[in-house]
Amino acid sequence: MRIALDAMGGDLGPGAVAAGAIQALSQGPRDLELVLVGRPEEIEPHLNESGAAGRRLHVAAAPDVAGMSDSPSYVVRNLPRASIRVAFDLHASGEVAAVVSAGNSGAIMAVGMLVLGRLPGLDRPAAAAVFPGIKAPTVVLDVGANMDCSALMLLQFGFMGSVYAQWALGYKNPSVGLLSIGEEGGKGNNVVKRAYDLLKDSPLNFVGNIEGRDLFSGDINVVVCDGFVGNVCLKLAEGLLRSYNQLMHTEVLDTPAGMLGGLFLKPSFKRLARRMDHEAYGGAPLLGLKGVGYICHGNSRPKAIASAVRMAQESVNGKVDQRLSQGWDRYSGSALNNAAAS
Amino acid sequence: MRIALDAMGGDLGPGAVAAGAIQALSQGPRDLELVLVGRPEEIEPHLNESGAAGRRLHVAAAPDVAGMSDSPSYVVRNLPRASIRVAFDLHASGEVAAVVSAGNSGAIMAVGMLVLGRLPGLDRPAAAAVFPGIKAPTVVLDVGANMDCSALMLLQFGFMGSVYAQWALGYKNPSVGLLSIGEEGGKGNNVVKRAYDLLKDSPLNFVGNIEGRDLFSGDINVVVCDGFVGNVCLKLAEGLLRSYNQLMHTEVLDTPAGMLGGLFLKPSFKRLARRMDHEAYGGAPLLGLKGVGYICHGNSRPKAIASAVRMAQESVNGKVDQRLSQGWDRYSGSALNNAAAS
Repeated sequence: MRIALDAMGGDLGPGAVAAGAIQALSQGPRDLELVLVGRPEEIEPHLNESGAAGRRLHVAAAPDVAGMSDSPSYVVRNLPRASIRVAFDLHASGEVAAVVSAGNSGAIMAVGMLVLGRLPGLDRPAAAAVFPGIKAPTVVLDVGANMDCSALMLLQFGFMGSVYAQWALGYKNPSVGLLSIGEEGGKGNNVVKRAYDLLKDSPLNFVGNIEGRDLFSGDINVVVCDGFVGNVCLKLAEGLLRSYNQLMHTEVLDTPAGMLGGLFLKPSFKRLARRMDHEAYGGAPLLGLKGVGYICHGNSRPKAIASAVRMAQESVNGKVDQRLSQGWDRYSGSALNNAAAS
Repeated sequence: MRIALDAMGGDLGPGAVAAGAIQALSQGPRDLELVLVGRPEEIEPHLNESGAAGRRLHVAAAPDVAGMSDSPSYVVRNLPRASIRVAFDLHASGEVAAVVSAGNSGAIMAVGMLVLGRLPGLDRPAAAAVFPGIKAPTVVLDVGANMDCSALMLLQFGFMGSVYAQWALGYKNPSVGLLSIGEEGGKGNNVVKRAYDLLKDSPLNFVGNIEGRDLFSGDINVVVCDGFVGNVCLKLAEGLLRSYNQLMHTEVLDTPAGMLGGLFLKPSFKRLARRMDHEAYGGAPLLGLKGVGYICHGNSRPKAIASAVRMAQESVNGKVDQRLSQGWDRYSGSALNNAAAS
């Protein structure tokens, strides 16, 4: 299996992506090959350390880069030789089975839709993240691919999240919640109120509105929201945990008693940090594409890139796009009829 | 000074509100009087413990209750004798100087607007919460009063938040950030992109888009968002800290080493918990009303009710509504001209 990595995407530059690729190859199966897409002169200096993995690491030249502030439509129209575009072109021509990028999410989504197309009947792909919950992980989507969503899109996200949670996390008949500001059906903004009615009438295991506090409890298997809210929540959670850890140091561990107590606690703190480590979950799959695309955090370090490669590889093996397509076919008759009738 | 408390609002019932009132009276100045508004038969049994404060505690009868699932328009049209309505009527007639409620936020907002009216030139009041940041507190608005906001409303929230942060937190020329999903001006949903342009051209100290991770860093003094996103963030932060504290117990403190280490750390953990304690900040002021209204969390315990009373009292003394009105007059010429021109 071959997977393309957008070497030019991400805040840390081609070095971090190349290091992630080498890490993925050293940990992954022998038949995994990776293609780093971008400017060869910026990629190749980072490949000296690749060792034995080097034979399974290739470079595909792409002279342009989609910048983090470029609009998706600009990238689609004006950058046919951008690394993210060349990576998806390799996917479309069958040379790779998946694309992983830590670049501009909007551009990844737009180029992926243009080059690979969408699964039949699904309006827009969504980026799905796995949040580490206190009891169990939760699939949250969309976390940044679609800013302004319709109620029907939120319904489709519920279907895609449900299929993904069954496959990736092994949940049977996953519970699906709609992110809102109160449990009652009448709460939320206009789109959320309409989505509530569509989800309620769908064959999904819809448990109603959930609130921000439920995103990390692990009580809900799948949480549906628009990509603006989902992205804000994702980054809020990261920032809050970082702030809390800083406070933990200034208020607890760096005090004289804390240094003494901390000696006993160091292994436990490390275990706690591992449980809340978003890098272990790697990227967010773009569900709804005809193919496999993973979006990584802009500041992904090699470990996160390697995790995303591993997940992309599992998605290819698990034929996630076919599962989504079949699941939607099965469900959409009744759901779309309900949507049209309401 | 007299302040009305909606005794029927809040998940914990009249007992918690009454206990909060007694706490506020015992801590507050001698000339503070409180009016508990609601069903006397449900309030009076909780007043036995009031002691010396009892003489400054009154009950105003209101037979109806705005339920948490009642729509704001239903409450406005059909419940003229609901406790929240009677409380604002007392404010309008000058019998009290402020209203505090832990009830249905949408109903508090709608009734407050109907009975007291809005400050001239401001479209909608916003609920402003103070988030405890790692370096300094941040005023975030709206946190739940307005679900679907226009770009112009977000601009006005920026003004109100700026004036409030100057008064309440003593910030000079507060920095104002717009909550979005990337720092660049072109990022966000359609409303946020338009609000960016309005804020950029305003006389506010606008620092551009900020992301979820900045909400608790304390680097930004005022954060503007719609009430849907703001409310989700507020509850996410509460839930995440609660989940993290649970994990801290199962992974750290309840282990054998943790119990030993925990002995040294208990005072530090308590100090940490105090720093992140949202109850100490009490309610969220409804900025933009002709008068003073505070919304408390639905599950407010007596301590949180007492904090909100103290803040409402300070708002009355500080003439916050006049400051907002004057601030808006001063700013609105240039800002509205810019908004109209764009």
